[in-house]
Amino acid sequence: MPATDRPIRADSARIVADVLRQAIHDGTYRGTLPGEDDLGAQFSVSRGTVREALSILRDEGWIRRGPRVGTEVIARTVDHGLDSLRGLRETLSLHGEVRNRVRTATRLVPPPIVAEKLGIPRGEEAVYLERLRYLDDEPISLDLTYLVSDVGDLLLEQDLENEDVFPLIEAVTGHRLGTSDYCLTAAAADPHTAANLEIATGSPLLLYERLTHLEGGRPVDLEYIRIRSDRITLRGTLHRD
Amino acid sequence: MPATDRPIRADSARIVADVLRQAIHDGTYRGTLPGEDDLGAQFSVSRGTVREALSILRDEGWIRRGPRVGTEVIARTVDHGLDSLRGLRETLSLHGEVRNRVRTATRLVPPPIVAEKLGIPRGEEAVYLERLRYLDDEPISLDLTYLVSDVGDLLLEQDLENEDVFPLIEAVTGHRLGTSDYCLTAAAADPHTAANLEIATGSPLLLYERLTHLEGGRPVDLEYIRIRSDRITLRGTLHRD
Repeated sequence: MPATDRPIRADSARIVADVLRQAIHDGTYRGTLPGEDDLGAQFSVSRGTVREALSILRDEGWIRRGPRVGTEVIARTVDHGLDSLRGLRETLSLHGEVRNRVRTATRLVPPPIVAEKLGIPRGEEAVYLERLRYLDDEPISLDLTYLVSDVGDLLLEQDLENEDVFPLIEAVTGHRLGTSDYCLTAAAADPHTAANLEIATGSPLLLYERLTHLEGGRPVDLEYIRIRSDRITLRGTLHRD
Repeated sequence: MPATDRPIRADSARIVADVLRQAIHDGTYRGTLPGEDDLGAQFSVSRGTVREALSILRDEGWIRRGPRVGTEVIARTVDHGLDSLRGLRETLSLHGEVRNRVRTATRLVPPPIVAEKLGIPRGEEAVYLERLRYLDDEPISLDLTYLVSDVGDLLLEQDLENEDVFPLIEAVTGHRLGTSDYCLTAAAADPHTAANLEIATGSPLLLYERLTHLEGGRPVDLEYIRIRSDRITLRGTLHRD
């Protein structure tokens, strides 16, 4: 196959932005970014392309640009591993304090689709939790949780403000968790979610559905989680079959 | 902890939308959705809340609503497994034909951040590919790929229009792939990406960075992938430590 043309400018700016964004996320860049000329040389692109890339990153909220201070990194994400089953507090313990604002904690008859996934007979109740989760003072995710009622009832007595649901399930049942089946997608924040997470309406979110089983296979916990993609990056390692 | 109030209406609509969206993704709902009254009963919410939920799903492009036809499912996602390292064509073979429009295939000096990840000495070239990937007639992802030059040069001679990079790397090197380290986030589509992927500017995308090694550990392939979240859902299974 013959080599085709080099990338056009809009592509180049996107490439530069992608590489810089990841470098900000993984901590390669902190504090002040290199100057426009330096970045232009590093990426073999024009100063105009560098400026276009930096505009993308500024609009996304990662950097601030000023005539005297240069380009400052003002935000980065923390990593949430996708290699093992852990709660947010368990995962982020090195990054800060995870607290939960419990907006709803109640019994209700779950929708049939939810009941089926959790093995709950039609018309019987589940425990439903809605938690806004903070890392230090900042909301980072909004979690809707359905629990089978024998487990959920015990959890209602526990410290849901300060503990992850996963270790609480293990504590109250005396059983270890086994596996979670998850699916991941992206969605734009609706106005209500955006207000709760303190972001602009339409901001991109990670949507994470996760069905968790006890060791032995019984499903006990179904969660619908909206994650601020400007604060959390999901990471993992894949192995070739 | 005492039970708090039941969810308010904006929350309820979001919950209904989340559950229905997942049911559309996983194929529980195809064709026509149940009527408003039926859904209201299933979710124990008012007809107004059901309508609000259906509006969210309509705005996201999953359903179409009409006075005589009811609510029709007009789109769903296909699954891309996150449990093992596979190319798009390998993964989606059951869903349709994957083709690649190769927009760029060239040698270039990669940015230092990229060079470092791939173990390329400063100033030496890599092979760079930009591919718009289609499932049947629809673009589903835009992939930027940096390859170490000894591997990349051989790939430039291969059928990049019809084959995944992963099996091609194994074929040309005679070595199996080992592991990939990935990170996942969400981003809004910039105008140029949106035009390529045939979606609206600002649409939520999954952003997937993946560094792939040969068996033995040598990094050979760094990709920045933008995935249409309205066409692909990432799925996997987690195990408790």
